[in-house]
Amino acid sequence: MKLTILIHCPDQSGIISSVTSYIHEQKGNIIYLDQHVDKEAGVFFMRLESEFENSIELPLFKKEFDKKLASKYGMQWELYKDGKKPKMAVFVSKYNHCLYDLLSRYRSGELLVEIPFILSNHKDLEYIADQFQIPYYHVSITKENKESAEEKQLELLKKYGIDFIVLARYMQIISPKVIDVFPQKIINIHHSFLPAFAGAKPYHAAFERGVKIIGATSHYVTAELDAGPIIEQDVTTVSHSHSIKDFITKGRDLEKIVLSRAVQMHAARKTMVYNNKTVVFS
Amino acid sequence: MKLTILIHCPDQSGIISSVTSYIHEQKGNIIYLDQHVDKEAGVFFMRLESEFENSIELPLFKKEFDKKLASKYGMQWELYKDGKKPKMAVFVSKYNHCLYDLLSRYRSGELLVEIPFILSNHKDLEYIADQFQIPYYHVSITKENKESAEEKQLELLKKYGIDFIVLARYMQIISPKVIDVFPQKIINIHHSFLPAFAGAKPYHAAFERGVKIIGATSHYVTAELDAGPIIEQDVTTVSHSHSIKDFITKGRDLEKIVLSRAVQMHAARKTMVYNNKTVVFS
Amino acid sequence: MKLTILIHCPDQSGIISSVTSYIHEQKGNIIYLDQHVDKEAGVFFMRLESEFENSIELPLFKKEFDKKLASKYGMQWELYKDGKKPKMAVFVSKYNHCLYDLLSRYRSGELLVEIPFILSNHKDLEYIADQFQIPYYHVSITKENKESAEEKQLELLKKYGIDFIVLARYMQIISPKVIDVFPQKIINIHHSFLPAFAGAKPYHAAFERGVKIIGATSHYVTAELDAGPIIEQDVTTVSHSHSIKDFITKGRDLEKIVLSRAVQMHAARKTMVYNNKTVVFS
Amino acid sequence: MKLTILIHCPDQSGIISSVTSYIHEQKGNIIYLDQHVDKEAGVFFMRLESEFENSIELPLFKKEFDKKLASKYGMQWELYKDGKKPKMAVFVSKYNHCLYDLLSRYRSGELLVEIPFILSNHKDLEYIADQFQIPYYHVSITKENKESAEEKQLELLKKYGIDFIVLARYMQIISPKVIDVFPQKIINIHHSFLPAFAGAKPYHAAFERGVKIIGATSHYVTAELDAGPIIEQDVTTVSHSHSIKDFITKGRDLEKIVLSRAVQMHAARKTMVYNNKTVVFS
Repeated sequence: MKLTILIHCPDQSGIISSVTSYIHEQKGNIIYLDQHVDKEAGVFFMRLESEFENSIELPLFKKEFDKKLASKYGMQWELYKDGKKPKMAVFVSKYNHCLYDLLSRYRSGELLVEIPFILSNHKDLEYIADQFQIPYYHVSITKENKESAEEKQLELLKKYGIDFIVLARYMQIISPKVIDVFPQKIINIHHSFLPAFAGAKPYHAAFERGVKIIGATSHYVTAELDAGPIIEQDVTTVSHSHSIKDFITKGRDLEKIVLSRAVQMHAARKTMVYNNKTVVFS
Repeated sequence: MKLTILIHCPDQSGIISSVTSYIHEQKGNIIYLDQHVDKEAGVFFMRLESEFENSIELPLFKKEFDKKLASKYGMQWELYKDGKKPKMAVFVSKYNHCLYDLLSRYRSGELLVEIPFILSNHKDLEYIADQFQIPYYHVSITKENKESAEEKQLELLKKYGIDFIVLARYMQIISPKVIDVFPQKIINIHHSFLPAFAGAKPYHAAFERGVKIIGATSHYVTAELDAGPIIEQDVTTVSHSHSIKDFITKGRDLEKIVLSRAVQMHAARKTMVYNNKTVVFS
Repeated sequence: MKLTILIHCPDQSGIISSVTSYIHEQKGNIIYLDQHVDKEAGVFFMRLESEFENSIELPLFKKEFDKKLASKYGMQWELYKDGKKPKMAVFVSKYNHCLYDLLSRYRSGELLVEIPFILSNHKDLEYIADQFQIPYYHVSITKENKESAEEKQLELLKKYGIDFIVLARYMQIISPKVIDVFPQKIINIHHSFLPAFAGAKPYHAAFERGVKIIGATSHYVTAELDAGPIIEQDVTTVSHSHSIKDFITKGRDLEKIVLSRAVQMHAARKTMVYNNKTVVFS
Repeated sequence: MKLTILIHCPDQSGIISSVTSYIHEQKGNIIYLDQHVDKEAGVFFMRLESEFENSIELPLFKKEFDKKLASKYGMQWELYKDGKKPKMAVFVSKYNHCLYDLLSRYRSGELLVEIPFILSNHKDLEYIADQFQIPYYHVSITKENKESAEEKQLELLKKYGIDFIVLARYMQIISPKVIDVFPQKIINIHHSFLPAFAGAKPYHAAFERGVKIIGATSHYVTAELDAGPIIEQDVTTVSHSHSIKDFITKGRDLEKIVLSRAVQMHAARKTMVYNNKTVVFS
């Protein structure tokens, strides 16, 4: 059996030795440990993977961990049992490149998730869901029906037991109503090197400004648009010879790769959020 | 003899054949030609290098070019004779990495310029000027003396016949008085991936925002701070494990390389400016 | 009407002005021109795109071009009429990531080609061909049947009027019999930064050597294994913490992007081959 | 007081908890811990930094560490007290860019080393040593005097108490006689992306092969030429338009940055060597 543990707590002496000793007592073998201290905030972060030769009683393990460690150090902690894949919903609008990329990786066994359904405010990409034989829900959104549409979304998310949502170029703003149910569990891809060119039409803005590099940013969605904790970014060079259309074409490759990396990090429980920033363990 | 010609004019049919035919008539051999059309603005740009076996009479060449081509097509054009190195003044404050980098390249013969002097608002880096035996002028700047200090700068720039100025981490805002004398001839290095984090303390702002990539930008100085035409940009990855101090250290290498590339492009007359953007020929 | 012309010939004075004047005479407007001189080999390369307001008579255009230009300068030249998409066959074995990537781009309209069929020496990926509704031919290859299998391949290639072949992780060596029919028209993706780690199991070899960067290379197939003209390369960083399995996973993204870029360049007639090297125009 | 500890030993359960508990008992606070397991070789690596509020008795600390931990787990381990800068000798020949870069960083306080002297087989770069006021030894090397020249080198290295050697484009092969005295303590920069283009004239070979990316590699020197453990690599793109001279110019920036990163990693005791590969902790 393999367990992954994520911890954060006020920084103090002795945490690592206490935790690793506890794992050792439980006959666990640590196969991965990484830690980080945010010195300004005084916060300690740790990610740890352990293998246990014999199956252990999880409820007891947790209870003891709480008693001996969590309460002593003021820890917030999470434990994941290996093999349980998180359930991920994909929201799309009309662009297909991120969806194709996610589903190809999913089908190849590269993405360790389950994808119970795809949701869109348009019907355009239903054919791709069909190609990959995944349920596709069309929930159109207008100014008038926004509230009821979100009710419908929440219903579907609940019904399928969704753990996190991926906005694969979904062109609607997610309201706090949904964000509050999925805090730090909605991953967006923005087609610029944030914080530059937040908001609409970033490639047009980048072209206008005459930048020599364009980028893409995946981040957790928060109430403030394009301002949530950044998970992953990447860039590519452009020159005067590239038109806005070229920016868009070059950007597609960035977008899909940056989004898929973020999804993989999140699915592997390698991300932690603090002060609107992420710790992304390797 | 080798000539480099830079042209821009309203886009229209026949320019390339007219110009290349003219060069051919003058017994020139074209060894480099690149062109660009800004379709939105309807502007044609061209850079051309030609070798002439026999020496040609430049004044006549120019006069004919004006008559036959420039007036016909409404061209703005510049001609440079190979071998004439532009004169470059370096302005610095207290950081030494860009200065060291420029002077090392200069001494290695990598930078095809002359550096008649270094100017600073501090005395700190005089020892480097001494190391490289280049005159160093200390022109301190305060709120009170700003105007007279700039007069002194302009005097020096004029006295030495300076063609362009490089701000190698010079921590003073250049006023329009100087910019107007050196339009598109002052190159700055800004330690962020513009337009993100314009203004002061970009590394602190980048750290605060939790970006995963930091950058540097070299641009021509215009009246609006950090908003001039971008010449060159580059980036490097960072993670949660990097402190602001790490950002600054990693950024130093970016700054010096991005600045030196911009200086080389400018010195080789490979840059043209239009609509607050650059065309940078390869 | 838009024409794209590719030329190479011995380097000499006057070529550009002659060609551009000819285009101008024919009432063409040059919208792109790039040229390159290989000084060591003394060869001139040019790529030119022209728009013609009125339809022109192509046979006449070609005949005149041959008479006035090609024979005078000893040119080898090709002319492509815009809008005619080249026909591309995809050869695969068992890995699906490059195939998924190519077909997703194809379906998105990103790849300006036609894909009449997919061919494989295995049945494994037939489901993807079905997903995208493209004919899939299974031509198994053994030591014994290699010759007849290649006959079958050539038959299919001829029947469908294929212009070029893409080996999207096709795990069989292409014999001269096929190469000779498609000289510089077979594009392979090799999963290393060639010439390092040519041959089998490059990720294993890279791991063994302890490199800090891995790469992928797309090249035209020649008789010598992994030694043909390189079209495109890209790399990504690795560290001691990455296993061979991690190399393979990281490499998949490189492979598909490098291959698709090469295919796009080839399909857009931006590549020329000389002395086992490529000129790839921008 | 701050201590840095590097450990490697056969992989087994309980190491991390034992070591961190020991540090905790000694009233140390762990401020950095990273570990790596080479699963194929079955070897555990750890790097750990601890702060101790009160000064501790180092000999006792070491003795106890040996008794309680090192002998139990079969560890090879090293301990470094913070603040003690390693002594680094620089060997050069005629190229000045790496030397300028190292000395500029040294003077800026970026390189946490002492540089007692520079050694060269030529007199060409003495002026740079003078500029930076560092002793320069000219030890010319011919086929005939190679043995005595190396004696002289070893003498100087011993006299100045040198900890490690940096070959900043030193164009002589280091013989086992010197390597044996400085095992994994001689850092070379090779101007290619090893293992491609090992040996002489790598830029010429890269040009000949028509690669689209060139690189630089820093590695520890071993008896086999250009085959030692790689510390750091980086690359930059090139195209058909770049001449060998352009490769060399672009490569200079790579070489100096890759070398300086390797030197910084080594000086900060972040590198470990095993099976001709490096573990480079972040």
